[in-house]
Amino acid sequence: MLKECNILIVGLGLLGGSYARGLAKAGCKQVFAIDLDQEAIRFAKEAGYIRDGRTSGFEPLVQAAQRVVFALYPTALEDWVRRWGHLLRPGCICTDVSGVKAGLVETVQGLLPAGVEFIASHPMAGKEVSGVQNAHLVDFAPANFLITPTDKNTPEGLEFARQLARLLGFAHIRVLSCAEHDRMIGYVSQLTHAIAVSLMCAPGAERFAEYTGDSFRDLTRIARINETMWAELFLWNKENLIGEIDEFATRLETLKQCLKTGDRAGLEAMFRQSTQARAAFDKKEKEE
Amino acid sequence: MLKECNILIVGLGLLGGSYARGLAKAGCKQVFAIDLDQEAIRFAKEAGYIRDGRTSGFEPLVQAAQRVVFALYPTALEDWVRRWGHLLRPGCICTDVSGVKAGLVETVQGLLPAGVEFIASHPMAGKEVSGVQNAHLVDFAPANFLITPTDKNTPEGLEFARQLARLLGFAHIRVLSCAEHDRMIGYVSQLTHAIAVSLMCAPGAERFAEYTGDSFRDLTRIARINETMWAELFLWNKENLIGEIDEFATRLETLKQCLKTGDRAGLEAMFRQSTQARAAFDKKEKEE
Repeated sequence: MLKECNILIVGLGLLGGSYARGLAKAGCKQVFAIDLDQEAIRFAKEAGYIRDGRTSGFEPLVQAAQRVVFALYPTALEDWVRRWGHLLRPGCICTDVSGVKAGLVETVQGLLPAGVEFIASHPMAGKEVSGVQNAHLVDFAPANFLITPTDKNTPEGLEFARQLARLLGFAHIRVLSCAEHDRMIGYVSQLTHAIAVSLMCAPGAERFAEYTGDSFRDLTRIARINETMWAELFLWNKENLIGEIDEFATRLETLKQCLKTGDRAGLEAMFRQSTQARAAFDKKEKEE
Repeated sequence: MLKECNILIVGLGLLGGSYARGLAKAGCKQVFAIDLDQEAIRFAKEAGYIRDGRTSGFEPLVQAAQRVVFALYPTALEDWVRRWGHLLRPGCICTDVSGVKAGLVETVQGLLPAGVEFIASHPMAGKEVSGVQNAHLVDFAPANFLITPTDKNTPEGLEFARQLARLLGFAHIRVLSCAEHDRMIGYVSQLTHAIAVSLMCAPGAERFAEYTGDSFRDLTRIARINETMWAELFLWNKENLIGEIDEFATRLETLKQCLKTGDRAGLEAMFRQSTQARAAFDKKEKEE
């Protein structure tokens, strides 16, 4: 049972913090953490999210860990495993929270010592804030938990990821390949963020602030973005994202050509298509 | 006082219906309506939104009207005034609900008989539904009411539009020129709808439905669109909208080039800019 395990969270930011908080609330008594920031450790300990934590001299914590959650940006995760991975003991099972998978997962799996398993996962539960201090704002209840196993993974590894998702209270658990994951994320998450950012970077956009309605606010809410994390995620997945941007730009250009030529039927056809596609989304949501 | 006036609503759709409903709730006892659909008239009368209404033989209603709200699409508004405008009596003041102004307002003003004033306005309170039967879903309370006077308008005309907005309970009343209105609408409303439609028209978008998070749902909610109305609004304002699409596409292309060349600093600069611009929006909202 996961509740009896010694669990180590590496990286006590917003997501690492919300995992620690969720595990503590679920009754896990052996949650430890590593972070560069002493204040994050102090906060999490005082809030009862973790039993203890370290900013340095954490070798004993790593050696004692039975389960590990890497709550780091992709590059930092790779660096950490390269430097400290050898400390992990056989039988330990690790996961992560990264928003990109292809390239990263295989690399991490290759770096870990024999007998240590890495089963990648991605909680689709972000927020436009950061830090363990905001961990209580993260809501897993309506969110998807994605697991992206490779042929290196075992049934035990997969079961750990599922248990973790259930313990944290995610609405849905879905299993897909790293490539499928990154293609899907390129469209539903990264393209939408690229659009919101491009919309919000309009020169003089502020002068329209007093006129905006719900639709504009909804569209640009996600333009408040953690620049370091998102630059990293975009670059890790750039092939997929560039492809999505190109396809989107082509459709927008089609719409523009309808405007230029006064093609009312063409516009109406696009509007009907988008209405039907969106209705299908709503329907699927209701069914779940 | 507006409450004592004989008010005629021309067009009992979603907005016309919600105006009738709002006026009735505010205590107006003399609200009448014209619509092509007998069922709309019957519903509004039964619901207590209007005192009476007609689908034909409505000349006496038009002649008796002291105030008129044209709740029609732009082209239908122009056609109606061309055909029936001569029936309006001197002293009558009219307004509309159209989402585009330049070209339309001057034309309507030119068609009306001497002594009949047309003061254009635009309630920024849409919904992804239509028909008087859904009028109760329209919420004026958080919305902007825009008034776009020309040099043909009088202080009495402007005061009528203000009274109407106050009676219906709009949060803010703003006065701007037709050209300013259309430029602003091209950006905050039409460009966002063009984006949502283009996003939702991705081939096979449905297959990602189970993976979408809040950001995707927010961005595409407005992709469910009344095709006839929006095709009309887009085409009426196509110069502004084409310009906005071009500028947006250029910014998205800049972002894509950062990806292509691996320009992390360039990406982060765009993300910082969008974050700051969006924060300014939030701040302005809170101040109001």
